[in-house]
Amino acid sequence: MVLEKIKQPNDIKNLTEEELKLLPDEIRNFLIENLSKTGGHLASNLGVIELTMALHLLLDFPKDKLIWDVGHQAYTHKILTGRADEFEHLRQYGGMSGFPKRQESDCDSFDTGHSSTSLSAALGYCMARDLQGEDYKVVAVIGDGALTGGLAYEALNNASQLKKSNFLIVLNDNEMSISKNVGGMSTNLERLRTSSKYLGLKNNVLSSLESWPHGERIIRKIRSAKNGIKSLMVPNMVFEDLGIMYLGPVDGHNVKAMLDTFKMASNIEGPVLVHVITKKGNGYEPAERHPSRFHGTDIFEIETGLPQRSSNPGYTDVFSTVMRKMGDRNPEVVAITAAMADGAGLKRFRNMFPDRFFDVGIAEEHAVTFAAGLALGGRVPVFAVYSSFLQRAYDQILEDVCLQNLHVIFAIDRAGLVGADGSTHQGIFDVSFLSSMPNMTVMAPKNKWELSDMMKFAVAYDGPIAIRYPRGEAYCGLKEHRAEIVLGKAEQIKAGKKVMLLALGSMVKRAEEVEALLLDHGIDAGICNARFAKPLDEQYIRGLANDYDLIVTMEENVLTGGFGQQVQTFLVDNGYKGQVLKIAVPDEFVQHGSVTLLFKELKMDAQSIAERILDALENRAN
Amino acid sequence: MVLEKIKQPNDIKNLTEEELKLLPDEIRNFLIENLSKTGGHLASNLGVIELTMALHLLLDFPKDKLIWDVGHQAYTHKILTGRADEFEHLRQYGGMSGFPKRQESDCDSFDTGHSSTSLSAALGYCMARDLQGEDYKVVAVIGDGALTGGLAYEALNNASQLKKSNFLIVLNDNEMSISKNVGGMSTNLERLRTSSKYLGLKNNVLSSLESWPHGERIIRKIRSAKNGIKSLMVPNMVFEDLGIMYLGPVDGHNVKAMLDTFKMASNIEGPVLVHVITKKGNGYEPAERHPSRFHGTDIFEIETGLPQRSSNPGYTDVFSTVMRKMGDRNPEVVAITAAMADGAGLKRFRNMFPDRFFDVGIAEEHAVTFAAGLALGGRVPVFAVYSSFLQRAYDQILEDVCLQNLHVIFAIDRAGLVGADGSTHQGIFDVSFLSSMPNMTVMAPKNKWELSDMMKFAVAYDGPIAIRYPRGEAYCGLKEHRAEIVLGKAEQIKAGKKVMLLALGSMVKRAEEVEALLLDHGIDAGICNARFAKPLDEQYIRGLANDYDLIVTMEENVLTGGFGQQVQTFLVDNGYKGQVLKIAVPDEFVQHGSVTLLFKELKMDAQSIAERILDALENRAN
Repeated sequence: MVLEKIKQPNDIKNLTEEELKLLPDEIRNFLIENLSKTGGHLASNLGVIELTMALHLLLDFPKDKLIWDVGHQAYTHKILTGRADEFEHLRQYGGMSGFPKRQESDCDSFDTGHSSTSLSAALGYCMARDLQGEDYKVVAVIGDGALTGGLAYEALNNASQLKKSNFLIVLNDNEMSISKNVGGMSTNLERLRTSSKYLGLKNNVLSSLESWPHGERIIRKIRSAKNGIKSLMVPNMVFEDLGIMYLGPVDGHNVKAMLDTFKMASNIEGPVLVHVITKKGNGYEPAERHPSRFHGTDIFEIETGLPQRSSNPGYTDVFSTVMRKMGDRNPEVVAITAAMADGAGLKRFRNMFPDRFFDVGIAEEHAVTFAAGLALGGRVPVFAVYSSFLQRAYDQILEDVCLQNLHVIFAIDRAGLVGADGSTHQGIFDVSFLSSMPNMTVMAPKNKWELSDMMKFAVAYDGPIAIRYPRGEAYCGLKEHRAEIVLGKAEQIKAGKKVMLLALGSMVKRAEEVEALLLDHGIDAGICNARFAKPLDEQYIRGLANDYDLIVTMEENVLTGGFGQQVQTFLVDNGYKGQVLKIAVPDEFVQHGSVTLLFKELKMDAQSIAERILDALENRAN
Repeated sequence: MVLEKIKQPNDIKNLTEEELKLLPDEIRNFLIENLSKTGGHLASNLGVIELTMALHLLLDFPKDKLIWDVGHQAYTHKILTGRADEFEHLRQYGGMSGFPKRQESDCDSFDTGHSSTSLSAALGYCMARDLQGEDYKVVAVIGDGALTGGLAYEALNNASQLKKSNFLIVLNDNEMSISKNVGGMSTNLERLRTSSKYLGLKNNVLSSLESWPHGERIIRKIRSAKNGIKSLMVPNMVFEDLGIMYLGPVDGHNVKAMLDTFKMASNIEGPVLVHVITKKGNGYEPAERHPSRFHGTDIFEIETGLPQRSSNPGYTDVFSTVMRKMGDRNPEVVAITAAMADGAGLKRFRNMFPDRFFDVGIAEEHAVTFAAGLALGGRVPVFAVYSSFLQRAYDQILEDVCLQNLHVIFAIDRAGLVGADGSTHQGIFDVSFLSSMPNMTVMAPKNKWELSDMMKFAVAYDGPIAIRYPRGEAYCGLKEHRAEIVLGKAEQIKAGKKVMLLALGSMVKRAEEVEALLLDHGIDAGICNARFAKPLDEQYIRGLANDYDLIVTMEENVLTGGFGQQVQTFLVDNGYKGQVLKIAVPDEFVQHGSVTLLFKELKMDAQSIAERILDALENRAN
């Protein structure tokens, strides 16, 4: 095995040409083998094996800086920097992260997870390097999807400041990009020829297209683009307009072709972009056929590519169904996604109501301000988005939606702990930042029926309104509790005595478990489904003050500025003398791992919560 | 006076050709006259008088939708929609806003204030219109500066979705743009000719350049651009690349030329951009000469353009001085601004250390991630930014700086109430959103010396750290209180009895006033300068619990998630049985007006606070 010779960074440089030829397939098999047992991002990683090899042949680690945009495609980089052994515990609690992590290796130069940050960070490195008089290389690898994010443009617009030193940008263009509307490259052959003249590359580094392994595909692509798809981005032109030299396209599965181009590109002064064409899922047929399903996959059977675990319907599925129904019933409802039609559950809506569906690319800020415009134009926009990505649009939610008090619905998926994706993807800030915004209403459903009811409530409402629900299986308990949704009204599930568990959304189920544990200790706790994080059910909470010695707030959100703090403030300001125990995420970032383990670690699992309650009661008694 | 014939929207259409020729100068004089007495945005408004007239001749209000990017240039629009009489109270409490406001007029289609939102909002209107089968026109007016914001690109990238209806984008290119680095247009004459062929416009609508009043200037501009300034943006090319038809440039001070072009452009299917060249401050010599000073001006003498009020040094000046000094002492310090070198106090630093100064354009997100890269490269970046604009970078602060625990300094100017600019510019959310971020440290100085000391502390610190200070005059009191800044340590100014005023930053001065008022009522309140909103001085605050019955927190920030809530949570969780009175901005947007009046309205002036304290003590006694 050639792979066994890779023990540490730069080992790849000691391989023979023959070994270098064998390595891609070994890595490919290694990734397929391992990910079939752990799950992870497969398709994107299979696409960049050769690209990563070329970069590792070029760069000197850890001196040089390599920044992966988003970062879910860094598996081969992890292998080539000596972390192959850790794939056994990929994305597991205490194990290796699925993203670059500086704490994991000094060959990881920037922690990523959210899209479109690589160019800005890399430019920062470049400027620092030049000021310090150092000479390390700085390389950013960015996908065509990530280029739809405004942040990437802001950086491109600035890159031309760099005059006397090099900044190598690798555009990883996989034909199957994340978002169809911005899609592939639509490269213009004439522009290509013109740009290749910059350095007289035409007959030199850039082999003639026909001779490339994927040449035919590239030519097809260019031809189709020439046929007037003016609406698609033409990145190479944009790059040149912004003062960035463009080289390419280069076959992203030909290590030598890439290495030659990278070498040349890295000797040029100023920012240079090398356009590399890769194929998502390359070399594993099921992933090539279903790159979207194999973007992030659970464990699967290698031969068939079929999932090894069946999962029950999740909140995303419930949302998907209710959107389809609402689309049918109410022609005013329109749906927006930022390149997440599948993940956020809008595929069915898109198929049934294509005119009322908008995929804006990886552009959460635009999505929100665009929604504001749609609302003003008389539509009822639903922006379906992951909690951690909604953070991108903080200012737009506040200034463009809340300030004008517009009827925009935020369907916030992955709100709470997400597990394997780790710190960049935990959706644990939205309750805090949304609650601080005037005019905003924030809801969270206890089970699948309530998500459906809340969506209907939100459509009938008028004003900014958010519904947050977690990743994973939708809770099917408490079916009999289906009181009508009323603005700012909680739903008491059980009265109990002395202790009241006031739980938000997903934590209602946890409250049931805690209640059962407490019963074993002779404590008959009540349970309330808060439903609204904002506005609070002040009347109900005021009532609690009279009847309960201990009020326990429970939320999948940070403590600071969250639901519990608002409840406590209200209670104390109204003279409550009992205890308020706030179960929430403490003031720290939450790493990757199974959600079950993470809750234990955070002392937010049922057992820990019950113990914390018993402690609180005991302290109170003393 | 022709102006007197303008009583309501669309009245301009009844004017004769002769009257239309007289109108611009009348509006110009009206604006100069009025703003000399009230202050306001002068230069930008003088630049778009003719442009606004042309749009009003084109559009039918309120049916058609006109969206002004940023919105500080909508004064002529306000006049032409019948609001001339209200200029007397421009930007004053209860008077007319300096920005478009839907509540003010149904001819204002979108409330703006922050940059780069117009295209997204307008696109939302367009899509809603088409879905509803309506036929109103939608026009966005965006400046060349606002185009550096990523949000504008995200919208442009989406505009090409619009196939069968019109969206008119007016690019208001004033030679003196906000940010020099992205600067002017650098239009390419050849591209212009090519684009004019689209509709055979060359000999038709677009007059030959030489015959235009500003033709010579435009030609000079184009020529200089041709000389290889590849680093500047070439918007027209970018627009075409993105599938947006480009028309222009058109002389922005020739009403007829613009109207003709707008008419033609608005009959085209799909998005069309008309490039209009205007001059900031046009027609008023002092503003033409100093467009930056007349961007937002206080009252001034018309003849000379000189300010009528001299102002004492503000926090911005103090910051400017300390940055210069730190730049001298510590070569690692670098400074970043998002197109606000002047407003944020970085002009002197730029002049002294041009290599270490980065103006990234109106691009707060990029500024923050770029700062993260600089920090990783061993520099100490200081991002000087207004509080309300920092909201744009919420996700980047959290994910790119805090998650990696990087040493980036946020110098947050205009933190607190800003006055005349109103709701979009109030800096009242930063304490809340920054405090919810793990690893972040948040400080606020009580006076000018403390800002200086805190900056020095921040440079010596290692980790994400923010210093917030308000707009306006720097407080020069409490000079003798200059205890060393220690992480998470408050500074007690006076012990007092029973009541402790725990004030953050600018509110320390207010606390002194409150203390004096309370003394008149026989109450001897203590005063503490909190210094840190995060981390709290837990030891000190725990000590307060023993000695004070009433702890009054004071901050220029919203209540939800703010300083007061953190103090209260800490006190109550640690068994405090006394009262906590939280003086903070309530859960509502704060309109424009003098800061003094606004504080009164919010019951945050010294008198109101003293009364609230007396009330609290009385309730307690009962």
